[in-house]
Parts: sequence; structure tokens; C-alpha cells
Amino acid sequence: MSSNELGEHFRILTFGESHGPAMGVVIDGVVPGMSLSIEDIQVELDRRRPGTSPFVTSRQELDRAEILSGIFNGVTTGAPICIVVRNHDARPADYDALADIVRPGHGVGWLHRYGVRDWRGGGRTSGRETVGRVAAGAVAKAFLASKGVVVQARVQQVANIKAGAPNWDLVESDPIRCGDLEASNRMQAAILAAKSDGDSLGGIVEVFAYGVPAGLGDPVFCKLDAELAKALVSIGAVKGVEFGDGFLVATKTGSENNDRPTPKGFASNHCGGILGGISTGQTLIMRLAVKPTPTIGQDQETVDLKGNPVTLHSGGRHDPCICPRLVPVAEAMVALVLADAWMRRDTSLNS
Amino acid sequence: MSSNELGEHFRILTFGESHGPAMGVVIDGVVPGMSLSIEDIQVELDRRRPGTSPFVTSRQELDRAEILSGIFNGVTTGAPICIVVRNHDARPADYDALADIVRPGHGVGWLHRYGVRDWRGGGRTSGRETVGRVAAGAVAKAFLASKGVVVQARVQQVANIKAGAPNWDLVESDPIRCGDLEASNRMQAAILAAKSDGDSLGGIVEVFAYGVPAGLGDPVFCKLDAELAKALVSIGAVKGVEFGDGFLVATKTGSENNDRPTPKGFASNHCGGILGGISTGQTLIMRLAVKPTPTIGQDQETVDLKGNPVTLHSGGRHDPCICPRLVPVAEAMVALVLADAWMRRDTSLNS
Amino acid sequence: MSSNELGEHFRILTFGESHGPAMGVVIDGVVPGMSLSIEDIQVELDRRRPGTSPFVTSRQELDRAEILSGIFNGVTTGAPICIVVRNHDARPADYDALADIVRPGHGVGWLHRYGVRDWRGGGRTSGRETVGRVAAGAVAKAFLASKGVVVQARVQQVANIKAGAPNWDLVESDPIRCGDLEASNRMQAAILAAKSDGDSLGGIVEVFAYGVPAGLGDPVFCKLDAELAKALVSIGAVKGVEFGDGFLVATKTGSENNDRPTPKGFASNHCGGILGGISTGQTLIMRLAVKPTPTIGQDQETVDLKGNPVTLHSGGRHDPCICPRLVPVAEAMVALVLADAWMRRDTSLNS
Amino acid sequence: MSSNELGEHFRILTFGESHGPAMGVVIDGVVPGMSLSIEDIQVELDRRRPGTSPFVTSRQELDRAEILSGIFNGVTTGAPICIVVRNHDARPADYDALADIVRPGHGVGWLHRYGVRDWRGGGRTSGRETVGRVAAGAVAKAFLASKGVVVQARVQQVANIKAGAPNWDLVESDPIRCGDLEASNRMQAAILAAKSDGDSLGGIVEVFAYGVPAGLGDPVFCKLDAELAKALVSIGAVKGVEFGDGFLVATKTGSENNDRPTPKGFASNHCGGILGGISTGQTLIMRLAVKPTPTIGQDQETVDLKGNPVTLHSGGRHDPCICPRLVPVAEAMVALVLADAWMRRDTSLNS
Repeated sequence: MSSNELGEHFRILTFGESHGPAMGVVIDGVVPGMSLSIEDIQVELDRRRPGTSPFVTSRQELDRAEILSGIFNGVTTGAPICIVVRNHDARPADYDALADIVRPGHGVGWLHRYGVRDWRGGGRTSGRETVGRVAAGAVAKAFLASKGVVVQARVQQVANIKAGAPNWDLVESDPIRCGDLEASNRMQAAILAAKSDGDSLGGIVEVFAYGVPAGLGDPVFCKLDAELAKALVSIGAVKGVEFGDGFLVATKTGSENNDRPTPKGFASNHCGGILGGISTGQTLIMRLAVKPTPTIGQDQETVDLKGNPVTLHSGGRHDPCICPRLVPVAEAMVALVLADAWMRRDTSLNS
Repeated sequence: MSSNELGEHFRILTFGESHGPAMGVVIDGVVPGMSLSIEDIQVELDRRRPGTSPFVTSRQELDRAEILSGIFNGVTTGAPICIVVRNHDARPADYDALADIVRPGHGVGWLHRYGVRDWRGGGRTSGRETVGRVAAGAVAKAFLASKGVVVQARVQQVANIKAGAPNWDLVESDPIRCGDLEASNRMQAAILAAKSDGDSLGGIVEVFAYGVPAGLGDPVFCKLDAELAKALVSIGAVKGVEFGDGFLVATKTGSENNDRPTPKGFASNHCGGILGGISTGQTLIMRLAVKPTPTIGQDQETVDLKGNPVTLHSGGRHDPCICPRLVPVAEAMVALVLADAWMRRDTSLNS
Repeated sequence: MSSNELGEHFRILTFGESHGPAMGVVIDGVVPGMSLSIEDIQVELDRRRPGTSPFVTSRQELDRAEILSGIFNGVTTGAPICIVVRNHDARPADYDALADIVRPGHGVGWLHRYGVRDWRGGGRTSGRETVGRVAAGAVAKAFLASKGVVVQARVQQVANIKAGAPNWDLVESDPIRCGDLEASNRMQAAILAAKSDGDSLGGIVEVFAYGVPAGLGDPVFCKLDAELAKALVSIGAVKGVEFGDGFLVATKTGSENNDRPTPKGFASNHCGGILGGISTGQTLIMRLAVKPTPTIGQDQETVDLKGNPVTLHSGGRHDPCICPRLVPVAEAMVALVLADAWMRRDTSLNS
Repeated sequence: MSSNELGEHFRILTFGESHGPAMGVVIDGVVPGMSLSIEDIQVELDRRRPGTSPFVTSRQELDRAEILSGIFNGVTTGAPICIVVRNHDARPADYDALADIVRPGHGVGWLHRYGVRDWRGGGRTSGRETVGRVAAGAVAKAFLASKGVVVQARVQQVANIKAGAPNWDLVESDPIRCGDLEASNRMQAAILAAKSDGDSLGGIVEVFAYGVPAGLGDPVFCKLDAELAKALVSIGAVKGVEFGDGFLVATKTGSENNDRPTPKGFASNHCGGILGGISTGQTLIMRLAVKPTPTIGQDQETVDLKGNPVTLHSGGRHDPCICPRLVPVAEAMVALVLADAWMRRDTSLNS
């Protein structure tokens, strides 16, 4: 599998560069006969769209999706679905001055890896690549919805500000997508303060998957949590992932940590809905550590491609805290993994 | 790819059940012409072998490896290498009473997934499956050693006891594999206390990879940290993984967290040696949250397969803290991912 | 791998339906730093384009390619290359009468397979799907050209008319792409006669690959000839494939058939340049059995989807002999397999 | 996928060298809960076993299979099944004189490919590698039998001797596995004559699959015939493959070649049971061109690894005509492809 692909049965392949003609994705392995419309996809793209509040980047992109294949008379046919989103507010000239500079927190990995690079706004490594992920995630969500599974994420922490339990009715209208309005207000203030300092903030995004039946996920290497970990860490800014009680388990005993089975399920959910790599029937819970956006407004000391010291004055637009926009991306990644796991299971149980 | 396989170019496939005839692995894609002996593999198997101290399970297995293919006159030929380890101290009768019981912390995922199960000691889901991983990891380590890369892990935390920086000269002779003897002594006492309570402890394992050049790892989905996350979370007891500063990044600003590029590399290593999914040339650093062993000596309330409440009296042997034995397994997983990433890179740079 | 994908390292994924918005392909794993222009692709698409002579279908498509990603400043970057070709002369209404009819020689496999189908001109199963193959093949040819490898095909036989050895200087200007003008004239007459009868003809296409070095291809399952066989039989009309002397070997003895190694190579090339699945350094030679186009102008007795007998009066446009247009498609398939084999080899020899 | 693997869902990985410790295979993706015994596998291994008649090689191998994993209480568990067959009558010393010689008809592809080779009896490239294929094919056959599908092959032609339709009741007791006793007698005489000349003969093997339902196989690249072509051409001696009327279609018109759909199926089966890459519900029919065994008893002029002319006096044992022993191998390959196609279909129809 190439690095631009994810999934075995419900598969996606993304393509496109931040300042090239278009972003896109091919989704392959979608079950035939499923109703799917352009609106299903557009609603999710609108959730990750930039330029919608002072807390996110000011880049303006309408991000209108076009479906090129795979749908006939409003239903999927089993053929691959290609979705394309044209880039409009590309300003490659913003990046001319950066062609020979190592941007702190970005590095020049692509150059080390491939020997050439598209330096315009990060090229293929831009966060804009997630357009394809979110479009594909919308299709995965449609599939999961037909099975009674719902994936929802929210911002649980920004800097040192930790939120209480989410009120899902409030999350989408909250510009931070936190769902705890008191915490959200403090997060907003912190983000605006960092923005005015030309700085950025990190945080924690929390994802829940409701309605997942017992028995999803594979043993050994493709455990459900292993696949989720890969998918979530593949999001650019993520530096850690944990399931259920996560890093807290280090300090617990077996008798405390074991979720006691009962006639109705389990007496607790320390494991976050996954045991031995397979879903237990409880809600899946996972958290992502999100680093502060490396592109900041302050001058930074760095080097050019020859290794000479230079000062970087950032000219591009960026998000002072990427967490709110990462919410739909994290949901998409979880939905893609669950849709794939669903189809893996059905294969192996063949009948 | 099946769930029993890992890697694209340097690939492995493990097989075997805890109380079946043998454990094993096929390693495919090893470069031809590399010297490899049975001793290279045995030394790593000996490191994960049970029964070697009061801090680990008393199951006695010599775990002698046999190579069935792929080696001719002491060198690899490019053909797949099959390594088999026979099971000797299998006591399936220990598990007869457990055939119909849901063991807390283990669940019955295999049964939900496949409809049948080998219930003897966890069958395929037993930690004994890692015999194949460690044997394959030994081959990956031999490959990496020829490139100047060394992977080393140690126990950083047990319960609330956190160790200082590791002294690598002391790690292997330390029964906890901690490398901070003062902390190790406290960890040993804590483990023995938990054991005498019929309980178990969790902890944190820390892995370092030295000598990794810049440019390993792929952008987008197969980022180096994404692949490492999958490989490490695929170890049974792991509930979280983080890279570099990990979850701490949530509380930091961009100006603090950015590793400043300098003419000689970087002024810091908050990112743990990976940026944008590609190695930076610095040491890779990652940490795993390890849950307390779910098999404990205390009676536990649970249910049988029909959902009726029962009390479980554990009869099997188990590790009061799995962290020390997880060290060679974690190293193996990291070595396997790095060997695969090395070969992925060389492919795409074709010449 | 999904059925819409081909290749491991040099990979392609095609999408699109005959009468949908567009045909397309994503090419992944192309080496970075290779010069590539839209003209490289257009020239091959023009070779397979319909509507260019009385010997092929009259459907008019300009088949203009657009590159959406993966190229920067005229060179490949290592990112996936998406190429899209819009459909213009789609006449789905031509097929309305066919929605419920089983077309002889086409069957209703998609319907059996997926339960729904896009019946407009064959939908995804149309020969028009080869637009993506040819576009991708152009990229593979550019890669191979940089290695000194050239792939060329021609029509060797139509009906019972067999051509002599090809004169490559004449092949492209020959409307049959035969390269033996005397035979071509007879083939043209036969095709026009069949066309005026409302019938169609089969034939044999022969493919040569010049400059292939010894050592390409893998042993065991992914033998070079095995991969070529799959790629060539995946072309819709192909019912057989043979290498070198092909089916003639059945009647030969070992002493006749063995190609005698000499200090300069081999004294003969009965094997068609492949032994044990690996290239020998001689020219690759293979032949494809191409069936007569199943869509014909004559009335045909068939059934509808409910199994009731009906008479089919074909309304769509079609090729009276697909062989000439199959030439660039066959070249594309061989080029794709060779490019992939080239990169597989380099991986495993890692250094 | 590595070249030692075949299949996506019903997958196999073979390992082992002709004169190494053992041959073997891991079969992954077998449905759980299927009855499987060592006898199911042994019966097929016995069919390909050498040393059983004057028409095949005199190498003596009992080829006893051992199952190392994946079976519990007589049924499959969903875990990978490893089967090992020890090599006993290995005589590597027979090949010492061949270490530096290029054997005609074998070439030195492995050496070009990997730079090193196991020269003992062909090492990994020996026909003995098919032990693993046949063992895995036995598992595929057991799966298919539960679905009502039966795969049977026979020798249709040896040299210029062509058989009539097979009488399946006679095939297995016929030493040529032809099933037309008059033709078989002439084939036997021809093989013994070639053997006494120190020569070998080629032929054609024909494979039938009965009971295959409509709808197996994927459109585009993984067409059922494309996958069968790959699997069959991956057998060492095969130089061509054709489906249904095969190469004869070149000389037919569309009106002749189209199989007319009827209320009960089709009026003919020119297509060999596959249209557009998907099974039609009729019997699958395919034929393989098998080259004469390259190892012969006559002296042959060749070169050594340095390119110097030498005369080769063959000392190894070999088959004067490999066709009879290729029958169970061809059946295994077809069964493996059909089992995989069965599971692919079920995946994509998910419900």
C-alpha cells in the first residue's frame, strides 16, 4: 500500500497539493446500493473549511466538492468514487520567500525523502491534504449511519484549560467545538491572546464512537486500536494517542483496571471500548495530543537549505490553534477505520 | 494485508497458538546477502523468555528457534525466512475450567469476531504470540545494525514510580530493565507487594532509536510515527503511545515547541525525532502506556458465555508486571517498522 | 488491493464510467525528479482515441488530459499524479433501451456481482476505462525510456490473415497498426466486409519489449510473465496470452526448446525473454488472443433481466475489430508491469 | 504483497528450498469453523508426490504434512494455518558440480535478481516449491467443496498427441492423468521414448471448475480470468494460458463467438464461463501450455557463471514430462483463486 492510501476493504487514496490545481480522493470498496449525494460530502467539508471565525486561518476556500465517478441515479455502484475539490485562494507567491528556508516545526522531510519538493504552502504535506480525508470520511459516516454507528469529536483541552463532559447539542455552534461553554470561553480568550502575540496553542481532541457492536477489529497486528492509532497519528499535528484511561493505566492495579463483565455488558469502561484489539460493545473513547501550530507570526531563527542561519518572517496565513478544525478530521479518520473494520469482519465470517 | 502481517517491504507474518504445537514467523523481503545465524535470533528470544525472575511468570519455555528456510551458507538469499519455536510447557488443562468463562480484561473478542475460539491460555491472542515478533525483530535489528541504527527500550515507570534517565550499561542486568537502580529497587518492591496481593501493576516503557538518518518515513498516511503507533499499540497491553514531548504539547505554545533548526541540526528535540511523519536525523523517542496484567490471583466476579454471573479463580501463570518482558517486544516492533521504512525509502528513490 | 488498482510500487488506480462525468487515473509511486509534461500523456491518449478511421468506432472524444497533482515545475515530486479526462460525446440515451437487456458477449456480471449497475454503455466495464490505463502507461513509458526500455505492439493477425515480421517504421501510419502492408490491406478489406455485414472480427496482438535487462521479475507467484499475464488478460477482449513460442512448446522436446546459453547471451529466444519468471536480457515477446467485438450490428436473440426472450437491435457505436485500438492499451499494460518490476527489484537489492 | 504470497482474503505464503530443511505454507484468511484434518491435505500432497511411476522423477519423498497452527478440535479458528513438510531425500551433493554452471532452460535469474543464490537443485525456484501450493490448495478445495464447487484437471495433450474428452472416472488411475485411455497409451509410449533418448516432452493441461456460481470475479484489473492467468503462469513450466475457445477466437466473428443468453443460461460456452472478468454460471474451462522439462539427460553446451563455454552432464533426477504431476498443482492454483474470489465477493456485498 502506498502512503497515500488507507484501509484494506473500505479504501481511500488522497491526492493534491495545497497550491496546485485541486485536492481530491478516490474512495474504493464502498458497498453498492448505498444512497449518497453531494450534500452528504459538502456538509463535512464545510465543517473543516477555513476562514469561518477569528480562531482559525483566514484563507478563503469555498471547498465545493465534485463527484466524478461511482454514483449512478443517487446510489453507489461498487465502482470507485472520485471526489475533487478545486483550490481557489491559492497564493503561491506568499511562499516564494520560503523556497529555500527550513520552517521550524515543519522541517524539510519531503526534501530528504524525495530529493525535490513542492514548497508552496507545504505542497502535499499541507494540512489542506485533509480535504480528501474529510470527503472520504463523509462517505464512511454515511455507511456507518446505516449500521447505527455515530462518530463525534470535540476539543477537550486547549493549553491548560480542561473542559468537562461535552454537551453534544452545543458542540457544533461553539467556535472551539468544545461543548462546555464556560471552558470554551476561556479557550477563546487564550487563543486570541496567543494570536495577538503571534503565537499558537496546543490541546487535546477527544473522539467518541457510539453504537459500535462487539466484534469489530482484528487480533494481532491490525487490532482496532492499532489501526485507529495509525490513522489518528497520521494527522499532521498529533503527537500522541490514548484509548480509554490511556496513560493513567500506568498507575493502576489489575484489580482496579479490569472492567468487570456483567450479564448486561461491563460494570465500567476503563478500556475505552476495545479489549485485545476487538470492540467490546461499549462506546469507543480516544484522545489525541495536538501540538501548537508550528507556523507562527513571530520572527524565528532558523537555517536555509544550505545550513546558513537566517531569520524567518512568516507571511502565510495560519491557525492560532488547530484543534477546532481538527475535530472533523479526527472524526473522519475514526469513521474510515471503523468502516474498514466493519467490512474486514464481514469478509472473514463469510457464509 | 491480513492482521497477522506487518510491513510492506520488510514483512512478517506470525502464526501459532499459546498451547498449540508451535509459535512461528515468516520474514519476507529481507535483503539478500546479509549474514544471519540462529544465535542472532536466540539472543533476543532469551530476552523475552518467561521464568527467569520472580518478577515475571513462572511458565518454563526454553524457546529454542529453528530456521526452516531462507538462509544458505550463513547468509540470507532473498527467500522468505521461516522460524519456528516449539511449545513445551503447554498446560492446556490449566484452562479447561475457563473454556466457558469471560476473563475480565481479556473479554471474548475472538469469539465475537470469529464465532469459535481456542480458549487454551488465550490461544492466538496470548502474549506468547510475541515470540514471532521478537524473532523477526532480531532479523530487523541485524539489518539496522548494518546501517548504524540501534533500538533500545527500558521501563521508565511502574505504578507511580518514575525513573531518571537510563544508564544503558545497567539496563539488561536490572531485572526490571529500568536502568535507574534506585528506582528499580522501588519498582521491584512494588511488584512483589502487588504479587503477594494477587494483583498486578502497570507502567510506562520508553523506546529510543539511535542513528536514524533524516528522511525515513512517508508523508500522509504512512508517516513514520503513524506506523510506529500502529506497531506499538498492536502489543496487547498498550493503551497509549506518544512521541517526543507527547501529551505535554497540549500545554505548550508554538514558539516553545518548535525545535529550532541550526547549522548542525536542531537546538532541541521536542518532536522526538519525527516531523511531518519523516525522521529529522535526531534520536527517535517514544513512550507506551502499559496496563496492569489483567490475569490476577484474586477472585473476580464475571460472567460465563451465557451471561450468567460466576466467580473466577485464576489458575494460569502470569506476570505481576509485564513491563520488563515488554521491553524486547517494544524494541522488536520499532526495529521492524524502521527496517520497513528504510526499504520503502530506497524504493521510491530508485535509480 | 482493490480491483481498480494495479502494481505494488509503481501503482495505478483507475476510476470513471463510460457515460459519467470523467475517466481518470491516479498514479502513485512514480520516482521523484522525473520530467513529465501533459504532452507525454496526450500523445498516448491520441493513439487510443476513437473516431479516427473507418476501422474503429465513430464515437467522437477529444480525450484531453488534465493533470491535477503530483507535478511541480515540470517534474514529478513523489506525490500521486491524478489525471482526468472529461467525457464529452456521451450519449446515455442510446442505451436507455438496453437497461433491462442482457447484451450477448457482455453478460450481466456487474449486476450479479454488485446487485446494481450503471447500464449506460457498459458503465465502468466499458472499454473506455482504458483511458486511465493508457494515461498511466504513458508515465510508465517515460520512466522506462529513461532506462533504455521501449515497449511496442502491433496487430499480428486479423481473422485468418497472419502478418509477417513488423516494420516498426510503418506501424503507426498503418490504420491497422500491423506493420506488414500487404497483410494490412487484406485485413482492412476483411474488417470493412465484416462491418458491412454488421459483424466483427477477432485477431492477435503481439507485444515486444526491447532493452529489458536481465534480472527483472520475482520468483514464485509474482513472476514477470505471471504479472504480464494478469495485466494483459485484464484487458476486456483478451481470451489468451502466451510468451515466446507459447502454445507451440507443447509439441517440442526439451533439447529443442532449451535456449542454449552462450558467452554473449543465448543462441535462441524460444522462452520470449523470461525464464523462471525473471527476464533473461533478451527481447520480451508475448501475444494476446483478442475476441471479436461482442457489440455487433446484427439483430441478436437474447433475454431481458427477468429471463424472457427478446431480440436485441444494437444502437450503440462500436469497433468492427478492436485490435488496432488495443495496441496502445497492450503497450500500456506491459509498460506498467515493467515499471513496477523495475522498482520491486531495486527495493529488494537495497543498499 | 511479496512474490511469495498469493490472494487477498484467502491468502497463502509459501517458503522453503528444495534441499533445505523443509517446504511449507501459511494459509491466512480461512473462514473459521470449517472442519479440516491432516488427511485432507495429505491426499493432495500424495497426488503430486514424486517417485510413483516410470513417467515421473525417481526422487523419493514421503511428503508428510504437519499442521503447526490454526486448527483447534478439528476446526479452523480464523487463525493462520502453518503446514510444514520436511525434506528427506535431499541430495545436495548431486548439485555440487552445478554450482557454477548455467543450466539451459533454467537460466540464472535468481542470481541476477538477488546477487546470491541457493544452487542446490534450484533452491527456492525448484518445482518442489509447489508442495506448499498443493497443501494450501487442499484447504481451498475443502472450502469450495462446502460451496458445491469442484476443480478438476487432466492432461489434454503430450507432444502432438491430443486426447478426446476426459472420462473423470479414469483420470486418477491413468498414470498420465489424461482420462482418454487410447490417447494415454500413446502418450506413455512417447514419454518413455523421449526418456530413453535422454530428452523430455511438453504438453497441454486442461482445467475445469464445476459449480461456480455467476458473479465471482472483479471488474477491471482483478478480473477472474486475469487472476487465474497470473496464478497459472506462475507455475514454472507454463508458457501460455487460454480461456474457453482461447486463441481460436482470433479467427471467429462476433456473431459466431457470442454465447447467446437464454432463459436457462446460455446456448454455448465459447467464453469458458467468464465474461467481463466475472463468472457466468457455466463451467470454467482453461488450458495451459506446458514446456518440456529443461533438465534432460543429454549433454548440453552451455556456459559457466563467468561466461566460459562448458558442457553440462546432468546428474539430477527429473521428470521426462511434467504434465501428469502438474495436474494437482494446476487444480490447486485454480482452487486458490476461486476461494479468494469467493471471499472478495462476499466482502463487497457486505450486509
